[in-house]
Amino acid sequence: MPSNSNAAKPAVGFIGIGVMGKSIVRNLMKAGYSLHVSSRTKSKAEDILQEGACWHDQPAEVAKHADVVMTMLGYPHDVEDVYYGEQGLLKHAAPDSVFVDLTTSSPELAVRLEQSARERDCFSLDAPVSGGDIGAREAKLSIMVGGSEEVFQRIRPIFEAIGTNIVYQGPAGAGQHTKMCNQIAIAANMLGVCEALRYAEKAGLDPDTVLKSIGSGAAGSWSLNNLAPRMIAGDFEPGFYVKHFIKDMGIALESAEAMGLEAHGLSLAKSLYERLAQAGEADSGTQALYKLYK
Amino acid sequence: MPSNSNAAKPAVGFIGIGVMGKSIVRNLMKAGYSLHVSSRTKSKAEDILQEGACWHDQPAEVAKHADVVMTMLGYPHDVEDVYYGEQGLLKHAAPDSVFVDLTTSSPELAVRLEQSARERDCFSLDAPVSGGDIGAREAKLSIMVGGSEEVFQRIRPIFEAIGTNIVYQGPAGAGQHTKMCNQIAIAANMLGVCEALRYAEKAGLDPDTVLKSIGSGAAGSWSLNNLAPRMIAGDFEPGFYVKHFIKDMGIALESAEAMGLEAHGLSLAKSLYERLAQAGEADSGTQALYKLYK
Repeated sequence: MPSNSNAAKPAVGFIGIGVMGKSIVRNLMKAGYSLHVSSRTKSKAEDILQEGACWHDQPAEVAKHADVVMTMLGYPHDVEDVYYGEQGLLKHAAPDSVFVDLTTSSPELAVRLEQSARERDCFSLDAPVSGGDIGAREAKLSIMVGGSEEVFQRIRPIFEAIGTNIVYQGPAGAGQHTKMCNQIAIAANMLGVCEALRYAEKAGLDPDTVLKSIGSGAAGSWSLNNLAPRMIAGDFEPGFYVKHFIKDMGIALESAEAMGLEAHGLSLAKSLYERLAQAGEADSGTQALYKLYK
Repeated sequence: MPSNSNAAKPAVGFIGIGVMGKSIVRNLMKAGYSLHVSSRTKSKAEDILQEGACWHDQPAEVAKHADVVMTMLGYPHDVEDVYYGEQGLLKHAAPDSVFVDLTTSSPELAVRLEQSARERDCFSLDAPVSGGDIGAREAKLSIMVGGSEEVFQRIRPIFEAIGTNIVYQGPAGAGQHTKMCNQIAIAANMLGVCEALRYAEKAGLDPDTVLKSIGSGAAGSWSLNNLAPRMIAGDFEPGFYVKHFIKDMGIALESAEAMGLEAHGLSLAKSLYERLAQAGEADSGTQALYKLYK
């Protein structure tokens, strides 16, 4: 029996049930939204179907049942498939549907999606996130939103059910561009973290003691304080995959070049991460860059 | 009339009265130490002489009057002069004197200084600091100490009068090596901060709004949160000079190479900062790197 508070809530679709997607879906259900989900592999969604989400084999079906459809996919070509395919969202959505792409994807594709959505009397926001597994689980994602501000304000409660640092960044593509800024800042910093730590080791210092000196001052960063301890412990399990970081840096570098920006640090970081992936570490966490420094 | 608590306190010498040196001297006097100071330019010390510090024209004279002598100089060759010169510390110090070099200088020189001090029955610690002008003024420096742990413990109250994060890092040179780790972590990160911010600007985003999204998550760092706002505001005044950062990166790179470490990010950062200095920005703050990205 739907409660009164649920009655006014839009039905939400979600496509892409990975580790983060699953946590987001749970937080949306917890907030009282009815969920329509689809993903490449149904078995991965079993637990959330048991918890009340409704399964559909195709994005098209999700589009028909939901007012707002969120997508969280791997690569830009996955986004293209889910939106533009024969059984994709755009062809089958009712007018006034709102699409929200949470994937870290290309700003140019975000602009194109918004145009395509408008042509069908729908709306599209780009809203990539940061905060990882834990941020998704605890509904503490940082969400960077591009697209119509009016549409953003209308569905803002949905974002509030899954994130805390929700910032409207500007027109279509602005969310993706902001996420690129995020990845660019991380990229070069990872080199510094790895090099500082390997230097400490080679100089015969105790790396944990070094972190006590440098972690809280001008050298301090999220990566130094969260990933350096994993490097020291030899823990290279993925929080964030090397292969996904390479994808993001590729998008960022392409955008930077298109804008005439020489991003030296980003370019170097990307080439080192590619060497790392070629050495068999594509499915490791980004802190595995440490292994490249000997 | 000396109070009882002062009676047991060693006389402290301080050589190198720059902005930070002056603040440190003041904090030592506030803690009840009697101060003997010297510097290249006497006029810069006038105010602390009025406040009670005792002036000497040469390091030799400071050595004769003080039990513990701190030095805070510009370049390793300045350190060599002050310690090894005809009117330098080593030749004129009484046995059991303790030297503390707060300069960010070469680990190899720190090792050499300690040996020279021992040969004269004296002691030497390398104790570079971070925290800048403000940390020095507020007695909140981070101090990274190398040398004899026993000597460190003996003079620890002196460090406690000027800093908060005081960490013993190991034998002679370990303090300098730790400071190099600090500078290495900063170096590459500065590229990321500049590139992220210039990307934001070129993409038509509002940089302040971008910082709201990325400043507190995985891209967050001291530099992003403290220097990016100055870049946005066009404030390139020195907190930390470009020329000094280049000196530090030079020492770090030389040490890294001697240990067989390829520090790609550090090497790139140093070459970009050298280009910046050649463009007339040697006396700007390190955030002026932003100008190099167009």
